[in-house]
Amino acid sequence: MEKASNYYTSDLTLKVNRPKMSKQKLFALRLDHRPHRDMRVSTHIALVARAFGMDGIFFSGVPDTKLCEKINEVNENFGGNFLIKTGCEWKKVIKDWQSQGGEIIHLTMYGLPLPEVIEKIVNSSKDKLIVVGGPKVPRELYSIANYNVSITNQPHSEIAALAVFLDYYHKRQEFNFEFKNAKIKIIPSKNGKKFAT
Amino acid sequence: MEKASNYYTSDLTLKVNRPKMSKQKLFALRLDHRPHRDMRVSTHIALVARAFGMDGIFFSGVPDTKLCEKINEVNENFGGNFLIKTGCEWKKVIKDWQSQGGEIIHLTMYGLPLPEVIEKIVNSSKDKLIVVGGPKVPRELYSIANYNVSITNQPHSEIAALAVFLDYYHKRQEFNFEFKNAKIKIIPSKNGKKFAT
Repeated sequence: MEKASNYYTSDLTLKVNRPKMSKQKLFALRLDHRPHRDMRVSTHIALVARAFGMDGIFFSGVPDTKLCEKINEVNENFGGNFLIKTGCEWKKVIKDWQSQGGEIIHLTMYGLPLPEVIEKIVNSSKDKLIVVGGPKVPRELYSIANYNVSITNQPHSEIAALAVFLDYYHKRQEFNFEFKNAKIKIIPSKNGKKFAT
Repeated sequence: MEKASNYYTSDLTLKVNRPKMSKQKLFALRLDHRPHRDMRVSTHIALVARAFGMDGIFFSGVPDTKLCEKINEVNENFGGNFLIKTGCEWKKVIKDWQSQGGEIIHLTMYGLPLPEVIEKIVNSSKDKLIVVGGPKVPRELYSIANYNVSITNQPHSEIAALAVFLDYYHKRQEFNFEFKNAKIKIIPSKNGKKFAT
């Protein structure tokens, strides 16, 4: 791999530290993680949450130190202070969130289309907990959630749903996010693999 | 689950059949699929490609009839004529595509930021093959590709990258896509699970 000494030679000059964009907390909750079965999908979800500017992610289900280590290694190398916590009790996470004045946004193919609700969500000053399901979503989640939101009404992927939601939520600013204390910074390149350390 | 007789009661009244939006073919190529290891991630990728309006997907690596059956079952229930083919030789797929005048877009965290290149890609009338990597991406792909495109320069997920790319490519029209001959149609709902059959 080539190395380069200057970070970011593209036209995207605006650098944004997400927490400064908004004062609201922005966390994800992934339901029903099981270590062996879900390692790859859960890793994708956590990395999407991090890259697209969330503060952290909770996993309900079985505690998983390996998953935490994996994500913390990415933090170490690529910067930021994204939080991950596994083995949570989903109802407790949601109740605590709501009792502290936050709201719950559940991503589901059955919900209202993102373009219909995103403005209301963005304009609300409440902390946001974005819930993405596992194979089985408890029916009561649909009534507990302040918003059930669909990213198309077709079956696809909770990983994709979270990314598209966050792209809309952040108004495409994820391309400008800075991650503090990064050891590695990728340098966008036309046809190579460049990074600065 | 509740059923309802009318499809789509939301404000999104524009219905679009993707192939009528553009004359270009739009396929994905996923590198290095291995049946057991990759079943879930590959399913997510194929379903994202379908839901976000691609014509089909090729998988290089080991042939996998189960994966094809899974995706074809979604076609059967939710409509459309999305194509899936596994066990392809990646270089042959790319060479054939290019020899027929199509172009290759490789999604990678090392590439140029999507917002910088998307307009040029959208304005080109060539057929598009969107390549998403597996764990190891052959180095030569970076030079073979007409575009290496990054969806942020952070590590995350090829599933998320494909979804965000297609959302930009289709100018958010995926929320209006119609899938012909669907047996099941989800009806967007504030807090329930509704569908029409």
